Amino acid sequence: MDPGPSRVAILGRGLIGGSIELALARSAPAIEVVALDRGDGLAAIDGAELVILAAPVLENISLLRAIQPHLQPSTIVTDTGSTKAAIVEAAQGLRFVGGHPIAGGTNSGRTSARADLFDGRRWILTPAPATPADDIQRVAALAERCGARVELLDAADHDRIFALVSHLPQLAVSALMHVAGSNGGAEGLALAGAGLRDATRLASSAPDIWRDVLATNRVSVAQALDLLINELARIRDDATGEELSRIFESAAAWKRRLDDAPI
Amino acid sequence: MDPGPSRVAILGRGLIGGSIELALARSAPAIEVVALDRGDGLAAIDGAELVILAAPVLENISLLRAIQPHLQPSTIVTDTGSTKAAIVEAAQGLRFVGGHPIAGGTNSGRTSARADLFDGRRWILTPAPATPADDIQRVAALAERCGARVELLDAADHDRIFALVSHLPQLAVSALMHVAGSNGGAEGLALAGAGLRDATRLASSAPDIWRDVLATNRVSVAQALDLLINELARIRDDATGEELSRIFESAAAWKRRLDDAPI
Repeated sequence: MDPGPSRVAILGRGLIGGSIELALARSAPAIEVVALDRGDGLAAIDGAELVILAAPVLENISLLRAIQPHLQPSTIVTDTGSTKAAIVEAAQGLRFVGGHPIAGGTNSGRTSARADLFDGRRWILTPAPATPADDIQRVAALAERCGARVELLDAADHDRIFALVSHLPQLAVSALMHVAGSNGGAEGLALAGAGLRDATRLASSAPDIWRDVLATNRVSVAQALDLLINELARIRDDATGEELSRIFESAAAWKRRLDDAPI
Repeated sequence: MDPGPSRVAILGRGLIGGSIELALARSAPAIEVVALDRGDGLAAIDGAELVILAAPVLENISLLRAIQPHLQPSTIVTDTGSTKAAIVEAAQGLRFVGGHPIAGGTNSGRTSARADLFDGRRWILTPAPATPADDIQRVAALAERCGARVELLDAADHDRIFALVSHLPQLAVSALMHVAGSNGGAEGLALAGAGLRDATRLASSAPDIWRDVLATNRVSVAQALDLLINELARIRDDATGEELSRIFESAAAWKRRLDDAPI
């Protein structure tokens, strides 16, 4: 196995950054880990062989420039954001390999961090066509030290897929909870069964991370929203029940495939 | 306590009808329960003091006429459907008290029936303004024998509220799963995290029950769908992130109220 870096810097100490810190302390205690909160001086990065940007996406993109005086020629930079094309584009000229651990959930923040957050989960890397295999390998080794399984994906494909399977569900659930609550009121919610509760687990998500996701994946998210809006309008205008049957049968079939797929 | 009817007929032996059967066998074994599947002869209803329609809504409405030759003047009819105004309207002239147990979920069918399905859950009754209190009381006693807590609600209010807190969530989740699956494909779903899985639990629902719900609550469901469509379009067109923040903050606040409310 790759002996690994001797010094790693993590910028951002929320759920993801904090969990990387804990996972490395567990599996690779010899690595010196420097974890920085927002506002900490970036000089602490000096000498790191690997820098992990674990703030919201737009902040990670800003940090790409701010960290440059502190990087050595050999330093590799990665990130953990939910959109990839924007940061891959912004990182041109750096030794950068975009990353996206598929973990987390609605509980964000340092206090939810866990050493086992990534165990057995996917950690997607989105190298550019010219990225050296050795750089990819060094970031992959980091993800594996955290317990994750690495998959490679083109950044644009990543953003298109995640618009459908992650960003759209989040936006739909938050919009649904907002509509049900603000129009049904507390009396209405008091009558809700388990269905609404289950469907809206994601509605606890905070807006800050998602504002950045939307800003950096606008085209794919808008396309996904339009697809959903069109299906909802078809149901609304369905006089015979045929559209409803078509959508429900398709949904039930895909739901079986989703639940059968390994997480 | 009301000594209760000596003979009850249940038409429909799916999750709800089957669970009423099991709940009564548990709590009131002295009651003779006649449970009929679709296609059974309705003569078996003869002599029942209480008839419970537990088929999909449109079938229940058809049964209102079919059962009439088998009712005594004292027989009270109730139902368990998810929309109430249409059947209350259709039942004029019968001794009818509409009912809606808030139980169940995605597992439909006889094999999912359980004696404790209604324990501690709400069972809404929607009597008409002229319904005698004694008729309401007899149906309420049945619901309570099944373990439920009874609440009274106007049928139109019921349908408007459930369009928002039950019908809209179901339609949104099925449409979401259909869109994510048919556009993301199996490769896309393989990358989905826990969020999509949690959000789409309801996507396993079968279309038959929901086609009837839509057909009998068209106006309120269309209004609810339009509210959701409008919010999704606002997110799509949100250049600054302000709409997103407003919707997410509202959603998170209503989600807290939903989770704090007793089921």
